[in-house]
Formats: sequence, C-alpha cells, structure tokens
Amino acid sequence: MSRFLAEKYQSLVAYTPGEQPTDMKYIKLNTNESPFPPSEGVIRAISKERVEELRLYSDPTCGVLREKIAKQFGVEKANVFVSNGSDDILNFSFMAFCDGSHTGVAFPEISYGFYSVYADLHRVDAKKIPLTKDFRVDYTDYLNVGRTVVIANPNAPTGIALSVREIEEIVKSNPDHVVLIDEAYVDFGAESALRLTEKYENLLVVRTFSKSYSLAGARLGFAIGHTSLIADLEKIKYSTNPYNINRLSLLAGAAAMDESDYYMENCKKIQENRAYTTDALRKLGFSVLPSSANFIFAKSDAIGGEELYLELKKRGILVRHFSTELIRDYNRITVGTIKEMQTLVETVRTILAEKTSD
Amino acid sequence: MSRFLAEKYQSLVAYTPGEQPTDMKYIKLNTNESPFPPSEGVIRAISKERVEELRLYSDPTCGVLREKIAKQFGVEKANVFVSNGSDDILNFSFMAFCDGSHTGVAFPEISYGFYSVYADLHRVDAKKIPLTKDFRVDYTDYLNVGRTVVIANPNAPTGIALSVREIEEIVKSNPDHVVLIDEAYVDFGAESALRLTEKYENLLVVRTFSKSYSLAGARLGFAIGHTSLIADLEKIKYSTNPYNINRLSLLAGAAAMDESDYYMENCKKIQENRAYTTDALRKLGFSVLPSSANFIFAKSDAIGGEELYLELKKRGILVRHFSTELIRDYNRITVGTIKEMQTLVETVRTILAEKTSD
Repeated sequence: MSRFLAEKYQSLVAYTPGEQPTDMKYIKLNTNESPFPPSEGVIRAISKERVEELRLYSDPTCGVLREKIAKQFGVEKANVFVSNGSDDILNFSFMAFCDGSHTGVAFPEISYGFYSVYADLHRVDAKKIPLTKDFRVDYTDYLNVGRTVVIANPNAPTGIALSVREIEEIVKSNPDHVVLIDEAYVDFGAESALRLTEKYENLLVVRTFSKSYSLAGARLGFAIGHTSLIADLEKIKYSTNPYNINRLSLLAGAAAMDESDYYMENCKKIQENRAYTTDALRKLGFSVLPSSANFIFAKSDAIGGEELYLELKKRGILVRHFSTELIRDYNRITVGTIKEMQTLVETVRTILAEKTSD
Repeated sequence: MSRFLAEKYQSLVAYTPGEQPTDMKYIKLNTNESPFPPSEGVIRAISKERVEELRLYSDPTCGVLREKIAKQFGVEKANVFVSNGSDDILNFSFMAFCDGSHTGVAFPEISYGFYSVYADLHRVDAKKIPLTKDFRVDYTDYLNVGRTVVIANPNAPTGIALSVREIEEIVKSNPDHVVLIDEAYVDFGAESALRLTEKYENLLVVRTFSKSYSLAGARLGFAIGHTSLIADLEKIKYSTNPYNINRLSLLAGAAAMDESDYYMENCKKIQENRAYTTDALRKLGFSVLPSSANFIFAKSDAIGGEELYLELKKRGILVRHFSTELIRDYNRITVGTIKEMQTLVETVRTILAEKTSD
C-alpha cells in the first residue's frame, strides 16, 4: 500500500479469485468453468480478418450483441445491458442502486463472496442474512426488507435454488428497492426470473457467458431489466469505461447466442454428471447439498474440508475450499466431464481409504 | 433514469465517445485509431486453439503480459499494472489517489474529457487549470499545486507536449501527491517520463495499446510506477473485476510487445503523414497546433469548426469536433495513411473552394 491511497480504501479487503496454479496440469474443478469448448460458430467468428480489425475501437453500444440477446430472451434491446463480465455489472449495480438514500443492501451471509467486497468498496451498509440450518435462502427473510436485495439463484457455493414464485414475493414486497437476481448458474437446472422483468420495474436479472456459454475467458456478462434500470447502468458504464468489451468478445457472444442449442445440450450433460457425482459421493458417505448449479457442495465426516482439498490438489485435482467458519467442512466441486468426475470419485475413494488405514 | 438511481449519480454527465456511425463507410479520422493492422505475431497468437480455451478464465495476474511489458520498458513486473484499457486505469487512479484527504485533483481545463467525468463520478474536487493562450500546458501552474495531478502528455486534443524536464519539476514539487502522466500518445514524438518512475515514488505513467500498438479494439492499457502505487491499483482491480482482461487480449498484447519494431516504424510513418497534413492545411490557411500526437488540431478562419466537421462527414470523412466554447473553432483530425491524408486535404480544399464561390 502506498502512502497516497485514499483513506477509505486502506482497510478494504479485495476478493480472492480461485487459484490458477501453473506448476502442473490439473483437473480444474475450482472455478466453475465449462469443460466444453465454445461452439463452432464462435471459433469461426474470430477469424484473421476480425483480428486485424482490432486496430479499431469496439462498438461501445454493443448493438449487435444486445440485439441477439434480446431476441434470444424475448425482450427489447433497451432491456439489455452488456458488460465486461457479470462482476462488472454487479459492481455497477452496487454503485447505482445501493446508495445511502436507499438504506443499503441485503444479501445472504453465505453467497458469492464479491457481494461483501462491493458493499465495502462503495461503503454500502450491508445486512448479511444467515441461511437456514440446511443452507437454504429463506425467501421470507427478504420480504419487506427495505433495502436493495442481491441474491444469487442458484446460490453459491451451495447450489440451492429459490423458485420463481419465491423470488416474485421478494420483488413484490420491496417495490421501492431494486432486487438483483444473479443467475450465473441458472441454466443448470433452476428457474429463471427473467419473465418477471416484464412485470416489475425493480427487478434486474444478471447473467453471464462464463458458465453455461463456455466463455469465461471472454469476459461477458449481461443484465435484463426495465429500460430505466438499463439506462442507469449505461450511465455508470459511460462514466467509467465505455469501451469495456473488446471486439472479439462481442463477436464471440453474438455467435454463441446463435447456437444456444449446443450450450443447452452441454448444460444437460452437466446435470447428468452432477447426478452421477452426487450419488457417488453420497455412497462414499458425503453430505451433498441438492445443487441446481454446475458445482456441488459436499462434506464428509471422515475428512476435513481443507484436508480433502489439499489431498486432491496433491493428486492433481483442484477444487475450491473456503475457510469461512460456517462452510469450512465443505468443498465446492465444479461438475466437469463424466471422465473428470469419475477420476474425482476414484481419487476421493483412494484418499478416504488411505486415511482409514492410517 | 430510474427512481432507484443513487442520488449522487443523478446529475452525473457521462463521457461521450467519438461517434461510430454505421450508415456508410467513412474514412475514420475521429477516434485516433491506428490505420495499420496489428503485427503478424498478434494475428498468429489468436489461433483456433486459443479461441477454444475461452472456456477458461483468463489469468487475473496477467503474468505473461506484465513480464513482457516490464522487459520492454526496463522495469520489474511489480512496477507494471495492466487493465481493461487506459480509461480503466484512469478510473482506478481517481478512486485510489484523489481522495478528499489528498484535497482533490488538478488537470488542464482543456484535456481528455474523461478526467472531468472521473472527478464528478468519484466526487473529487477538481481544479481545472486553463491552458496558455497558445494552448500550451504551463508546467509552472502545477508546481506545489498540493493536489493529485493528471496531465496527458502530449495533451489532447491539442497534441502539444511538455518536456520531461518540465514534468520532473511538477513531480518534484508535489512529493505528497501522485502525478499521473497519461502517455496515450507519447510514441508519436514526445518524450516519455517513464525513466523518472525509478526516481519518484509519486509518479505514475499510464500507457495504452490503443494508439501506437494498433489494438484499440482489444482494450488494453498499462501503468508503470512504484510498486506501492501498482499494489494500490491491483487492490482496486481485485475489488471490482479481477478478471477484467480477456484471454485473447492478453495474448495480443504479449505478442505486440515482441514486435515493437513494427509498431515504432508505424509511428514514424504517422509522424511523416502528420508533417504532410500540417503543411498542406497551413497552405490552405489553417492554424495547426504543433502536434506530437497521432492527430492534429486545426482551425480555419474561412470556415467554422462545426461546419467543417459536418461538410467532411457529408463527404465520407469523420473528424472530431468538440462544442466546448474555447475550442469550438477547431477540429481534431486523426493522422491516418498518406492516402487518407491526401483525400482529407483535397476534400478540405474542395469544401473551402465551394464556400468561397457561394
């Protein structure tokens, strides 16, 4: 830290992304990426000619991509905001919609770790609402909460989803506050609240190309909501970094929208592999939360969360362990290909067997 | 604007990027892009295999690119920050280094329009220091100014540069404040203050791949400075959007660093074309400021700034006109290929001739 850093940021604790070690080749089940490559149209879209055009700025209005997204989800272009990853949109939303006059924000105590960081960064008072004992978001905790609401649905790292009916109750009961539903993982088996955006001007649904659309490395997120919410986000974007999406990612996103069938087929495979893994780990004595996402959250009484994480890493498999008290017994395991999942299960079996024979 | 937008942003006026019309094909001399494509290594770097890897997150530490930049500029990796365009770095710097306790920021009244927007966005008190009558930054205005200093060198839209000696005086006389030198255009003929970063812990030099490196559409900027300044910027980045550069732009930037000769050769061509254009416009009666950038700033007594802009646009040539009172007589014209410049000069000649015959 320099002696020039603004006082208000001196005690800020930044987000810690999942590790990206380069010391060896791992089976990477720690950052919820897709095991499947982008579709062929994406590969074709990024041609030599398009790379040569990198000399020119990208379209700050992201017109083509926004039109494709609008068409895909049955809304108007003016209902669509795109930005440099859904983190970017979350950041803008904390700036735009959680100001003091709106008396802060509420989100689940156990959820995507960045919500807390954004609250700290923008000095927004945050009410962190505990999950139930079985790690569920109890929607009644958010009724008439009188704050901006941010909920990941399915939640992370638990994978457990709310129903659209429950979300609608939250949205309805907080008409003077924005309710942001972060649907990063929705394509893996949860219900989307997207249709509700037509009915409620205070609902913002945030999505990403990073998970179901196999484009984590392209950095593309989008939000769907009332035109006035989208206009607010555009204003923040045009006051920070108007050209925040590069030309090639705009092309990749547009091409991906044209091939949704491929991606939705991949999501089905992930759900099958999730079922296999959940079942196999349960047979090995694990508690596995009922996930609607592309990861599972699991613990074993036979081995600690951190120990399992380290043992798996030693054997070339990366999973995500959080040292937060409430969830330190668990690991979040991304669902990959069936082969990767089989290797995971066999490796876990070996680790447990070695431990028992100690 | 929605009724949910934070009060503090309600009166914020966002930045207006240069227009990107799609109604016809223009000779684009309005956003200071390079007329030359990225180097062959950049084209090769973005291969089919690399596009397939978009399923994986990018490296948030940007390790390879930062090492290449460090090597190129003779500094350590820990002295290099990279982000999603230099706008992103400017935004982070206004957050990190212009806090109230540092009593605000000072920058030239006529300069890159985004400085004002960042000051407004982050509610930083801004002292806007007038240029001299001949549109120069007078460095003595910034001595002991007691604020964070932001200066584009060469300045925009004038193109006029300070010497390194003058910048050193500013840096030396403000030891308790960061001096940010925005060197977006430095490769086109100005002196870089980069070497001074070894001597002064309060100097941050900001660069971009958008101009001299033909990568405007990749969105890549970097900053060089003391390790503690870089650490502050990293902290802000990891608290907003850690993965803010996509995989392909990281590859493009790294490849470009390996082929600097090609880009510096292009910069020489731009300087030649600038000399040609300056000379030709002066012969047509224009006042042209002495530019060290890849654009010229010119006015004619025979035609108003806005009128010339509109006449050129009608004829398929886009230049940038600013309606700000002090500079409304001028147009900022990006220096392109010699052929583009010849077309520009001939078109201006025609417009002036038609006007005289009116």
